[in-house]
Amino acid sequence: MPRVIVDCAMYRDGRRSAAPEDLSDALDEARESGDAFLWVGMYEPSEEEFDHVSQEFGLHKLAVEDALTAHQRPKLEVYDDSLFVVLKPVVYDEEADTVSAGELMVFIGDSFVVTVRHGEGAALAAVRHRLEQDPEVLRHGPTAVLYAVSDAVVDHYIEVAAELQADLEELEAEVFAPNATETKNTAARIYAFKRQVLEFRRATNPLLQPMDRLAFGNVPFVHGHAQPFFRDVADHLTKASEYIEGLDRLLSDALAAHLAQMGVRQNDDMRKISAWAAMAAVPTMVAGIYGMNFDHMWELRQSWGYPVVLVVMAAVCLGLHRLFKTRGWL
Amino acid sequence: MPRVIVDCAMYRDGRRSAAPEDLSDALDEARESGDAFLWVGMYEPSEEEFDHVSQEFGLHKLAVEDALTAHQRPKLEVYDDSLFVVLKPVVYDEEADTVSAGELMVFIGDSFVVTVRHGEGAALAAVRHRLEQDPEVLRHGPTAVLYAVSDAVVDHYIEVAAELQADLEELEAEVFAPNATETKNTAARIYAFKRQVLEFRRATNPLLQPMDRLAFGNVPFVHGHAQPFFRDVADHLTKASEYIEGLDRLLSDALAAHLAQMGVRQNDDMRKISAWAAMAAVPTMVAGIYGMNFDHMWELRQSWGYPVVLVVMAAVCLGLHRLFKTRGWL
Amino acid sequence: MPRVIVDCAMYRDGRRSAAPEDLSDALDEARESGDAFLWVGMYEPSEEEFDHVSQEFGLHKLAVEDALTAHQRPKLEVYDDSLFVVLKPVVYDEEADTVSAGELMVFIGDSFVVTVRHGEGAALAAVRHRLEQDPEVLRHGPTAVLYAVSDAVVDHYIEVAAELQADLEELEAEVFAPNATETKNTAARIYAFKRQVLEFRRATNPLLQPMDRLAFGNVPFVHGHAQPFFRDVADHLTKASEYIEGLDRLLSDALAAHLAQMGVRQNDDMRKISAWAAMAAVPTMVAGIYGMNFDHMWELRQSWGYPVVLVVMAAVCLGLHRLFKTRGWL
Amino acid sequence: MPRVIVDCAMYRDGRRSAAPEDLSDALDEARESGDAFLWVGMYEPSEEEFDHVSQEFGLHKLAVEDALTAHQRPKLEVYDDSLFVVLKPVVYDEEADTVSAGELMVFIGDSFVVTVRHGEGAALAAVRHRLEQDPEVLRHGPTAVLYAVSDAVVDHYIEVAAELQADLEELEAEVFAPNATETKNTAARIYAFKRQVLEFRRATNPLLQPMDRLAFGNVPFVHGHAQPFFRDVADHLTKASEYIEGLDRLLSDALAAHLAQMGVRQNDDMRKISAWAAMAAVPTMVAGIYGMNFDHMWELRQSWGYPVVLVVMAAVCLGLHRLFKTRGWL
Amino acid sequence: MPRVIVDCAMYRDGRRSAAPEDLSDALDEARESGDAFLWVGMYEPSEEEFDHVSQEFGLHKLAVEDALTAHQRPKLEVYDDSLFVVLKPVVYDEEADTVSAGELMVFIGDSFVVTVRHGEGAALAAVRHRLEQDPEVLRHGPTAVLYAVSDAVVDHYIEVAAELQADLEELEAEVFAPNATETKNTAARIYAFKRQVLEFRRATNPLLQPMDRLAFGNVPFVHGHAQPFFRDVADHLTKASEYIEGLDRLLSDALAAHLAQMGVRQNDDMRKISAWAAMAAVPTMVAGIYGMNFDHMWELRQSWGYPVVLVVMAAVCLGLHRLFKTRGWL
Repeated sequence: MPRVIVDCAMYRDGRRSAAPEDLSDALDEARESGDAFLWVGMYEPSEEEFDHVSQEFGLHKLAVEDALTAHQRPKLEVYDDSLFVVLKPVVYDEEADTVSAGELMVFIGDSFVVTVRHGEGAALAAVRHRLEQDPEVLRHGPTAVLYAVSDAVVDHYIEVAAELQADLEELEAEVFAPNATETKNTAARIYAFKRQVLEFRRATNPLLQPMDRLAFGNVPFVHGHAQPFFRDVADHLTKASEYIEGLDRLLSDALAAHLAQMGVRQNDDMRKISAWAAMAAVPTMVAGIYGMNFDHMWELRQSWGYPVVLVVMAAVCLGLHRLFKTRGWL
Repeated sequence: MPRVIVDCAMYRDGRRSAAPEDLSDALDEARESGDAFLWVGMYEPSEEEFDHVSQEFGLHKLAVEDALTAHQRPKLEVYDDSLFVVLKPVVYDEEADTVSAGELMVFIGDSFVVTVRHGEGAALAAVRHRLEQDPEVLRHGPTAVLYAVSDAVVDHYIEVAAELQADLEELEAEVFAPNATETKNTAARIYAFKRQVLEFRRATNPLLQPMDRLAFGNVPFVHGHAQPFFRDVADHLTKASEYIEGLDRLLSDALAAHLAQMGVRQNDDMRKISAWAAMAAVPTMVAGIYGMNFDHMWELRQSWGYPVVLVVMAAVCLGLHRLFKTRGWL
Repeated sequence: MPRVIVDCAMYRDGRRSAAPEDLSDALDEARESGDAFLWVGMYEPSEEEFDHVSQEFGLHKLAVEDALTAHQRPKLEVYDDSLFVVLKPVVYDEEADTVSAGELMVFIGDSFVVTVRHGEGAALAAVRHRLEQDPEVLRHGPTAVLYAVSDAVVDHYIEVAAELQADLEELEAEVFAPNATETKNTAARIYAFKRQVLEFRRATNPLLQPMDRLAFGNVPFVHGHAQPFFRDVADHLTKASEYIEGLDRLLSDALAAHLAQMGVRQNDDMRKISAWAAMAAVPTMVAGIYGMNFDHMWELRQSWGYPVVLVVMAAVCLGLHRLFKTRGWL
Repeated sequence: MPRVIVDCAMYRDGRRSAAPEDLSDALDEARESGDAFLWVGMYEPSEEEFDHVSQEFGLHKLAVEDALTAHQRPKLEVYDDSLFVVLKPVVYDEEADTVSAGELMVFIGDSFVVTVRHGEGAALAAVRHRLEQDPEVLRHGPTAVLYAVSDAVVDHYIEVAAELQADLEELEAEVFAPNATETKNTAARIYAFKRQVLEFRRATNPLLQPMDRLAFGNVPFVHGHAQPFFRDVADHLTKASEYIEGLDRLLSDALAAHLAQMGVRQNDDMRKISAWAAMAAVPTMVAGIYGMNFDHMWELRQSWGYPVVLVVMAAVCLGLHRLFKTRGWL
Repeated sequence: MPRVIVDCAMYRDGRRSAAPEDLSDALDEARESGDAFLWVGMYEPSEEEFDHVSQEFGLHKLAVEDALTAHQRPKLEVYDDSLFVVLKPVVYDEEADTVSAGELMVFIGDSFVVTVRHGEGAALAAVRHRLEQDPEVLRHGPTAVLYAVSDAVVDHYIEVAAELQADLEELEAEVFAPNATETKNTAARIYAFKRQVLEFRRATNPLLQPMDRLAFGNVPFVHGHAQPFFRDVADHLTKASEYIEGLDRLLSDALAAHLAQMGVRQNDDMRKISAWAAMAAVPTMVAGIYGMNFDHMWELRQSWGYPVVLVVMAAVCLGLHRLFKTRGWL
C-alpha cells in the first residue's frame, strides 16, 4: 500500500478489523458481507499515488482531478458510483491572527469511504479515533463517517469564529482608544481582518447548499435516517455563517467609526494647537507694539513699564488658557 | 424530582392538577386520559439532571445536546416523537443600554411540554400563570403552551425594540448637538449600538422561518387550528425584525451624518481660528513695520504717531471682526 | 348605536338605504336579500365600544385585538368568517415636512364591511361619498369598498411621494449651495429626511404582498373579477415603493456628496486662509529684517529706504495676491 | 377622424391599405378578413379624443385611464379583450447630459394595435416605416408591431447607455484631474449623474418582468412563435439594465474616490502651505533675535554682521526648500 | 471556402478527416453517417462572409445577427434547429493591468459546430488541438466541443482572477505604505481596478445561468451524460464569480481604508507641522520681548543677557522637541 495512505481500515459491524492487505480484495469482502466498509485516509497524494485507489473504487474522473488539485470550492457532487464531498476546514493561527483553509475531500460509495486531505487543518485521526470509540454510530457505515467528518469541520468553524470574535474585541479597543499613537495602523488591521473573514466565508458559505441537500434531500449513498444529524450540522454551519456575516458587517462599521474617530481627533488636535498658538501670538503682538520706534511712547519711559507689560502678557496667556480649558479646547 | 425543575404540573381539561409525584406514571396517565398533558419547566439543568427527564419523555439525543449547551440559533426541529423549538428571549438592561439574549427550549410531544431556560430573560412563571387563568386556551394542550411562550417572547421583542428606539433618539440628539464637547465618543456609541442591534437580530431573524412554518405549514404535534394564532405571532415577529432592520439602517446613516457633521464642525473651527489669527496678524505686521530702524521715518517722530497707529490697529481688528461676523466665520 | 361609529349604512343594489336601527337585524336582512351589505365606519373605538360590533359580525378575536391597538403592520389575514386588511395611510405635514402614518383596518364579510380608523390620515368620508355617486361599482358589494379604500390610500402614497420629491429638490439645492453658511445643518436635515422615508417605507412595503394576493390570488370574500382593479392598485403601490426606494438611495448619495462637498469647501477655505496668511507673513518678515539692530545696515541710513521698503512690501503682497488669484486659491 | 391620431392604417397580408374612413367599419372588416389588422397611432390624446377609439376597440377602463395620465411604470397587463403594454422610451439630451423618459402605451387586440405616445422619445413613425418595408414580418399582425416597437425602445436604451458611458469617462477625467480648480463641482456632477441613472433605471428595470413574460410565458394576443424575438429583446434589455447597474456602482465608487482624492489634495496643500510657512518663519525668527536690544551683542557691531545674517537666512530657506522638495512636500 | 474561416474539419468517430471541399455536401455526409460532425471555426466574419455558412447550417436569423455584431451578453439560446451559446473569454494585459473581454459564439446542431470569435481572447486552435488528441472525448460530437470550449474559457477566468489577486496585493502594499508620496494616485488606481472587475463580472456572471442549464437542465443538442462535465465547468465558473465578488468587496474596503489612512496621515502631518511651528514660535516670542524699547529693562544691560537668552531659547526648543517626540507628534 502506498505510503501516502495515512490510515486504512476495514470496519465490520461498527468495529475496526485488521488493516487490509489488498484494497481490491478488501473491497470485495466488504461488498459481500454487506455490513462492512473500508475507510482509506490519504494526505496530499500525487496523481500516481491516487491512481491505484481511484481505480480500485471506481471514482469519477472529474472528482479525482478535483481531489488532486486543491483550491476547490466546498461542494457535493453525485456520480453514478459514488458521492463526492469537498469540505474546507479552516485553521486559525493564534500568533498571526490569520485564518487559512485546507481541503478535505470525501468519496462515499456503497462500502467504502476515501478521505483526501490537503494543507493543514482538521487532521482526521481524532475523528476516526472518536468514531472507533462509538461502534453504535460507526455501524451506520460510510454515512456515519461523512457525518462525523463534516460535524468536526463545522464545529471547528464555530471555534474559529469565536477566536475572531475575540480579535474583534481587541480591535474595537484599539479603534476607540483615547490615545492616538495606538491607532496608526488601525485601518490596515481592519482591512487585514476583513480579508481573513472573506477567506473564512469562502470556506463556509458554499457549503450551506450541499449541507441542506444532505439534511433535507434524498442523496444516494447517504441513509435517510441520518437527516436529523445533517440538519444539526447544517444548523451549526448556518450559525457559523451568520456569525461571520455579522463580523464582516461590524468590521465595516468599525472602519467607518475609525474614520469618524479620526475626524474627531483631528478636530481636537486642531483646537489644541490653535489654543497654544493663540497663547503665543498675544505676547508676540504686544511685544511687537512696544518694539515700535516711535519717539513719543510714554510707557516706554516709565520704570514700571516693562514689568507691567510682562505681567499683562502672562495674565492674558493665563486667561486664554482658562478660557480654552472651559471650552474644552485644551 | 430534581431541584432544577422550576415547576411541573399536570393539566387536565385546561385546569392544573396536583404536581405529579413521578414523571413516568404521570406521563402514562396523561397519555391514557387523552385530554391531559404534563408541563415540566427547567432552568439551566446539568447533563445528569436533564437525563432523567429526557429519557422519560423520549427526547431526541441531538435536541437534548442542544438544550444543554446554550448558544443555539432559534430553530424548529421535528423529530419522530417530539417537536423541538429554540427561542431566544432578549433582555434590555436599562442602565447599560445593552441587549442580551437568553435561550428558551421547548419540547412538545403528544402529551407533554418540557421548557428549558438558559440565562436571564423571559421567566416563564408569568406565562404559566396567565395560561392557568385561561382554561379555554389551556385546553388546547401543548400547542397552547408553545403559542403562549412564543407570543410572550415576541411581544417582548417589540418592547425592547421600542426601548432601543428611545436610545436612538438620545443618540440622534448627541450627533446633531450644537456643542462639540458632547460628541467625543459618538462614533463609539453608535458602534456599540450597532453591536446591540446585531445581537438582537441574531435572536429574531432566524426565528422568522420557524414561525412561518408554524403559521402556514403542517407541523406535527401542533394543532392546525392554531395557525391564525401563530400567524399573529409571526406577524409581530416580522414587525420586530423590520423595526430592527430600520434601526440598523438609521444607525449607519447616523454614523455617516456624524462624519459629515464633524467635517462641518472642523471647517467652522478652522474659520474661527483663522479669523482670530488674522486679527492678531495685522497689528503684529504693523508693529513690525514701525519697529524697523530706518533713520528717516517721519511718522515715528510725530507725537501723534503712536496713538494713531494704535487706533488704526484697533480699527483694522474691529473691521476684520465685523467682516468675519457677517461672513459667518465667527 | 355607539357614538364612535362615524357612519353606518345599508347599501342595496348599489344605493344607500336609510341607516339601520339595529346592527343585528340589519345584518340578517342584508344576508337574506343577497345583494345588500352593511358598511360600518368607526374611529378609534375603545374595547367596549368595539365589542358590540365585533360580536355582531363575528369578527376574529385576534383581528379585533389588532384593530383596537394601533401600530400594526399592513397585512391581509383570512379567517373563517371574514377577511381582515390593515392599511397604513400616510399624512404629509407641509410645514414640518414630516410624514406620519395612521392606520385603517378593514373587515370584509359576506354582507358587511367594517372600517376602523386610527390616527389622522385618509378620512374615509370622501371615499364613501365618491362610491355612493357610482352605484355601478358599489353594486359589487364589500369588494368594491375594499378596492375604493385601498385605491385611495395608495393614490395618496404617490401624492406624498411627490411632495417628498419636491423636498428633496430643496435639499439638493442646499447641499450644493455655493455659500457655506446655508449648509450648517444639512447632515441633520438629510438624516431627518431619511427617517421620514423609513416611516413611509414601513407603511408601503409590507402592503406589497397582500396587494399581490388580492391582485393574483384567490382570496375569499373578494370577487375574482375585481382582480384587474387590485392589479392596478398593486401597480401604483409598486410605483410608490420604487419611488421611495429611489428617494432613499438619492438621500444616501446626497449625504455622501455633502461630505465630499464639505471636503472641497474646507480645502478652498484652507487655501484662501493660507493665501492671506502668506500675504501678511512677507511684510512681517521684511519688517523683521529691517528691525534688526546691526550697526552697519546701509539701507537704514538712506532717506529713500523706508518708502522703498514699503513699496516693495506692497508689491510683493500684490504679486502674491495675483498669483493666488490665477491659481484659484482666492 | 380626430387630429390627435398621428397615423392610422389598415394592414392586409403585410401590406398597408388606404387609411380607413371609419374605425368601426375598418375593425369589422379586419375581423372578418382574419389576416388584416388596424394600427392607430396617437399622441397625447385628451380624454374626449381617446374616448372614441377606446370604445371602438373595447379597451379596458383601467388601461384607458393609464393611457391618458402619463407617469406610469412599464408593465404588461392582460385584459379579456386586449393586452396593454406600457413602455418608457428614454431621450438623451446631448447638451444638458440629461436623460428623460417618455411613455408609450400599446394596446394589442385580435385585429388591432393602438399606440399612444406621451412626451418626447422614440417617435414611432420610423418604426412603422421600417415595418412597412418588411411585409414578411408585418404579416404576423399585432404581435409584429409589439415586437418592433419594444425592440426599437430597448435598442435605444443601449444607445443612451453608451452615451452615459461616454459621460462617465469625462467625469472620471475630472475626478482624477491633477488640477484642483476643475473639481469644484465634481460631487454635484456625480450626484446629478446618479439621478439620471435612477431615472433611466425606472424606465428599464420594471420592464424586465413583462419582457420575460413575453419571452417565456403564454400571453394572449401574442403568437407563441414570436417568443425567440421577444427573448432577444429581453436579452438586450437585461444587457441595458446590467449596464446601468454597473454605471450606478461606478458612480458610487467615483464619489468615494473623489472623497479620497480630496483628502489627498488637502494633505498635499497643507504640506505645501506649511513648507512655505516654515521658510518664512526662519528668517522672521532670526530677524527677531537680532532685533533684540541687548547692549552686548557682539555680532551687531561687526560690519559683516548684516550681510552674513542675510546670507544665512537665504541659505536656511534654500536648504528647507530643497528638503521639502525631496520629501515631496513641494 | 471564404478566407475568414480559420479552420474547418469533419470529425468521424473522434478522428479528424480531410477538410471538406463543400460545406453543403459535407453536412449531408455527416448527417447520413450519424457519428460524424463538421466543425467550422470563423474569426470576425462580415455579414456576407457569414451568410454562406448560416444558410448552409440553417442558423436562426436572430442568432446570426448576434454573432455578427459583437458586444453580446453571455447566453444560451435554444432554437428549433440549433443551440446558440455566447461566451465572453477575457484577456489580461500584463503591462496595463487591464482586463478586456472578447466574444465567442458557438452554434451547435445535430451534426455541426460553428464557432465564431470576436476580439482577442482564447484562440480556439489550442482547444481544437487538444480535443483532436483525445478521440475518446471527441467521439461525443458537438457536445464535446461545447464542453471543451467552455471549459477552456472558464479555466482562463480563474487564471485571470489569480492575476488580479496579485494586482490587489500590490495595491494593498501601496494603500498601507508608510511613505505618503507613493499614494498620490491610489484612489485612481483602486477605481480603475474596480472598472476592470466590473468588466470581468460582465463576462462571468451572466454565464452562470446558462451553465446551470447545461449542468442540470435538459438542453437539446447536448447529451445528458455530459451533465457532470458541465457541472464541473459551472462549479469553476461559480468559483471565479465568487472570487471576483470578493475582489470587488476588498477593493471597496481598500478604498475606505485608504480614506481612513489619509485621515491618519493628515493628522500626523498636522501634528508634525504644529510641533515645528511651536518650536519656531517660542524664540520669536522671546526675541519680541527683548526687542521692546522700554528704557528700564535690566537684563538688556547685562553682558550675560544675550547669551543666556540664546541658551534659554535653545533649551525651550529642545525641551519642546523632546516633549513632542515622547507624545508621538514628531
